[in-house]
Amino acid sequence: MIFTEKLDQAMARNHSRLCLGLDPDPRLMPAGRDIYEFNRAIIEATADLVCAYKPNLAFYEACGATGMVALQQTMAAIPRHIPVIADGKRGDIGNTAAAYARALFETLGYDAATVNPYMGFDSVEPFLKYQDRGVFILCRTSNAGAADFQSLSCQTDDGHFIPLFEMVARKAREWNKAGNVGLVVGATYPDELKKLRQNFPELPFLIPGVGAQGGEVELAVRFGSGPRGRAIINSSRQVLYASREDNFAAAAREAALKLRDQINQYLA
Amino acid sequence: MIFTEKLDQAMARNHSRLCLGLDPDPRLMPAGRDIYEFNRAIIEATADLVCAYKPNLAFYEACGATGMVALQQTMAAIPRHIPVIADGKRGDIGNTAAAYARALFETLGYDAATVNPYMGFDSVEPFLKYQDRGVFILCRTSNAGAADFQSLSCQTDDGHFIPLFEMVARKAREWNKAGNVGLVVGATYPDELKKLRQNFPELPFLIPGVGAQGGEVELAVRFGSGPRGRAIINSSRQVLYASREDNFAAAAREAALKLRDQINQYLA
Repeated sequence: MIFTEKLDQAMARNHSRLCLGLDPDPRLMPAGRDIYEFNRAIIEATADLVCAYKPNLAFYEACGATGMVALQQTMAAIPRHIPVIADGKRGDIGNTAAAYARALFETLGYDAATVNPYMGFDSVEPFLKYQDRGVFILCRTSNAGAADFQSLSCQTDDGHFIPLFEMVARKAREWNKAGNVGLVVGATYPDELKKLRQNFPELPFLIPGVGAQGGEVELAVRFGSGPRGRAIINSSRQVLYASREDNFAAAAREAALKLRDQINQYLA
Repeated sequence: MIFTEKLDQAMARNHSRLCLGLDPDPRLMPAGRDIYEFNRAIIEATADLVCAYKPNLAFYEACGATGMVALQQTMAAIPRHIPVIADGKRGDIGNTAAAYARALFETLGYDAATVNPYMGFDSVEPFLKYQDRGVFILCRTSNAGAADFQSLSCQTDDGHFIPLFEMVARKAREWNKAGNVGLVVGATYPDELKKLRQNFPELPFLIPGVGAQGGEVELAVRFGSGPRGRAIINSSRQVLYASREDNFAAAAREAALKLRDQINQYLA
């Protein structure tokens, strides 16, 4: 099954556009839990409420080989019908990008991955070749520094000027031969999100930045949902760390349920 | 000791500007060797010939948890006086970038890392905060696709137009408060290398792309060396896979020696 089908099915089954970021931070987790134990409890408490999970690889790498083992265990704990997006924002020269793609799609078995476009086509192509996997290209990211380069005014081939992030979106569309390309567009810049959605209605958007990062759920949903409804609204900290006590899993469930329903309310 | 001092000392001690990329690819390695065994033999054969080692993390991640263990073992096999550059090209929002920086500089103990600038200042800052470590920002990369975005003509604050990669170099200089910033500039674009070196004489350049990627050593050295001689010329495949037979380590030594001396010849 290709990624977008799997995503559509999970969205329909769980009546959800919520993607839960699995970003285990030992400084925020309940005391005495290891990463895998924490993740498994979170997954068990939320697997009927999300359309995808998104582990950010940084949090696992920060724990060295132990973290990588916890990541593999975590993957095994996610029900097969829920797509998993590897958030690694990789990008490298061809043979190296191929190693990353192999790592993420074959060794670790992810359904999709985020990639960084700065190095251009041949750094993204090895990911695109896995036609049944999703490739989310960083476009307009949710952080404050995003404007440093992404908002620069760049000259197009025909002499017009558009922001770099729109150049990236145009290239992403051009590269989308197999229908497996999406964009990462932060909820923290609703005007850009709206414009990108208008110009690129066919692409799935992975939308981080609601909750802890300050993006408004309503605008993320209203501006980010395309005609096919493929807006994947990510939340991490707001759900994962709803409580640091023994009830953390139940608290995460409650936070996920609330956010899922809030998203659905604005969709309707 | 800060990174540039450690680098200068290793350059002087080994009379070398050669950085050896430790990119173990099982399809190119001699049969029957595991990654750590291969790396250790390569390191033992070349530790007196290089100014730095540069493991590209993709090749280790492609092997899952086993690869991460091999990476840690490899680090332990590198003599302490040779700086090690983690080539991961990371870049993410602040709290995540902090996790990457912690992973690379604390958990794994690297002396420097490559980072991707697309997400802007707050994605690079957590690395910069480790003032004794080097931070090499992707500027003009060595691959064919680099031109897709890096060469786009962008408008500066004062209304001029310069390529995106030069915008990145300007920001890198601005961010270089602690003297720990360098640039990644490919040997495959000698004109851009020359211009960047003229405009940014003070920054160390990490220069990939000679050998297998087609960049000429002479131009890389002549154009890339700044007044302080901080051009780090990287080679990976040409040295690592000089032979697939049992003599692979001796063959790698021979290739490294030849390349080091060739670099020094053009420096003189």
